[in-house]
Amino acid sequence: MEENQQVLIDSLPQGKLEESHYRMETAPIPEPGDGEILVRTTAFAITAGTRAGLQGSASYAGAPTTGIVMNGTGVGEVIASNVDAISTGSHVMAPTGWQQYSVQEAKAVTVIPEGHNPIHYLGPLGVNGLTAYFGLLRVGQPKAGETVMVSAAAGSVGHIVGQIARIRDCRVVGVTGSDAKCALLMSDLGFDAAVNHRDDGFRQSLKEATPDGVDVYFDNTGGDILGSALFRLNVGGRIACCGVVSQYDTDRPEPGPKGIPGLLINKRINMRGFLVFDYLEDYAAAREELSGWLESGELKSLTDEISGLEAAPGAFVDLLAGGNVGTRVVRLDQ
Amino acid sequence: MEENQQVLIDSLPQGKLEESHYRMETAPIPEPGDGEILVRTTAFAITAGTRAGLQGSASYAGAPTTGIVMNGTGVGEVIASNVDAISTGSHVMAPTGWQQYSVQEAKAVTVIPEGHNPIHYLGPLGVNGLTAYFGLLRVGQPKAGETVMVSAAAGSVGHIVGQIARIRDCRVVGVTGSDAKCALLMSDLGFDAAVNHRDDGFRQSLKEATPDGVDVYFDNTGGDILGSALFRLNVGGRIACCGVVSQYDTDRPEPGPKGIPGLLINKRINMRGFLVFDYLEDYAAAREELSGWLESGELKSLTDEISGLEAAPGAFVDLLAGGNVGTRVVRLDQ
Repeated sequence: MEENQQVLIDSLPQGKLEESHYRMETAPIPEPGDGEILVRTTAFAITAGTRAGLQGSASYAGAPTTGIVMNGTGVGEVIASNVDAISTGSHVMAPTGWQQYSVQEAKAVTVIPEGHNPIHYLGPLGVNGLTAYFGLLRVGQPKAGETVMVSAAAGSVGHIVGQIARIRDCRVVGVTGSDAKCALLMSDLGFDAAVNHRDDGFRQSLKEATPDGVDVYFDNTGGDILGSALFRLNVGGRIACCGVVSQYDTDRPEPGPKGIPGLLINKRINMRGFLVFDYLEDYAAAREELSGWLESGELKSLTDEISGLEAAPGAFVDLLAGGNVGTRVVRLDQ
Repeated sequence: MEENQQVLIDSLPQGKLEESHYRMETAPIPEPGDGEILVRTTAFAITAGTRAGLQGSASYAGAPTTGIVMNGTGVGEVIASNVDAISTGSHVMAPTGWQQYSVQEAKAVTVIPEGHNPIHYLGPLGVNGLTAYFGLLRVGQPKAGETVMVSAAAGSVGHIVGQIARIRDCRVVGVTGSDAKCALLMSDLGFDAAVNHRDDGFRQSLKEATPDGVDVYFDNTGGDILGSALFRLNVGGRIACCGVVSQYDTDRPEPGPKGIPGLLINKRINMRGFLVFDYLEDYAAAREELSGWLESGELKSLTDEISGLEAAPGAFVDLLAGGNVGTRVVRLDQ
């Protein structure tokens, strides 16, 4: 009988995450019960946010545990179904985790409409795209002509944020960790400027890239980049707090920027944290708008594909070091 | 001829402010020109916010200068007037600074209506009261039954914030720097709880004082108290950033709290800086509501009066160390 290959959390990182914190295991393929389906994973996304689930306290993902399958959002084919509305052979987005097969409750999955590319549900039509969409438009609320700055701009969320801002006629400035990524953002995705935060002259470069200041800062990183953004924000500026990439891969989070709360007061800045799940009831409308932009070619999806389950731990460690461009996807169907 | 006694900024503090950073001087009484009035100061307020004006960079008060009269908001009698709408003998609130006489442009002063106590224009009907009013109601937006936490709760702004929150049927928790102030807030101003941030067990006491968490935190201090508030804030909580008392009296501002931006995200907290001047067009309506509360006895004004111009520098140094209760007012008419 076929088995279910899985990647389990073997131990919790003290400090940086390493491949050795994971182990491969095989288990029997599970049986779906009433109201459940069996899904064969075709691909899953690796995102920096899941690193927070391996921390002790400051995470929305609950307390970390070892000996369980690593969590992650995937897409897959329905192999068996005890749910009337979901037919065998259809594709779903689901919290598959890093494994070949999983049993899912109907309410936990999103059925992917015929004709849609399932991989898009790990990118622009998935959690990443929705996070970019709601964070930018609902929290940041940019107006045409304003300057939008985004950190981790070549990442799974950031590259979509920048493109939506461009579609909404904003000036778009990305911050990322390599010159190659900066070049890509400008040449392929229509960013107006991009700045490498690893350069010595980062603050000066950011200043030059934002001659009219910054009206909306979409923060994926926290830390020093947030601190630098505070100096460039205009009076009445908004910060959409989405992620804290700079603080995930450590057990010693940095203190917050010195400008908080002083600069927030002087500039009347509104800084707001959000989680995409708060916008659940508007997902369908958002997907419709995002799909339209994908079809028209205004929105491009960058993915960075890795093949095979066993490559996932290394791909995650590399992602936390900034190795990805766009959404990192592990494919199990190739 | 009578002279104009003044307190001038003699040098800028590197580190803590001392009395020696000021000097007394006398100057001729100035003459009002066209469209100007001459005001004899009867009292002025000393507030922590003016300390920021003596810092180099992170201030909304502009670049600091020496050799000028120390700035401050006062009230006084109109001695001579070249403005039709302002009659001699009336009382005004004005940026008098720390001096006996000043010439004011008509647009810079607020005429105090007959029957109003001028001293209230340094407290609940002045900048302090308006700051409390707009910061709490417009930025914090508390709902009845929610818990409102305020720092520097016995200060000029804080003691009004807490009372407005109580009037709006919130549970009110004050943070202040002495047990005596804690007792006063509860016995005289109707706070539900008060916690001394200088106690070793501050975080635990704050936890016990906020059994349902905190929905609105009115932040007058920044620093560690802000950091502690972040842990008590509920999902969807709001922070009204009003002042940074903890950071004014130093040239080495602390870093921001570690929970920023991580906890802002997990709890979807909205943190917003504001300046009272942004609400200028609603001052009259706010004063009407505040006056009503004063008349009904629901709102009490705490003032802490000092006599004589020469006492002002020492009173400011003492205020920065937490020596005041309510609004510190220097009276020149006694």
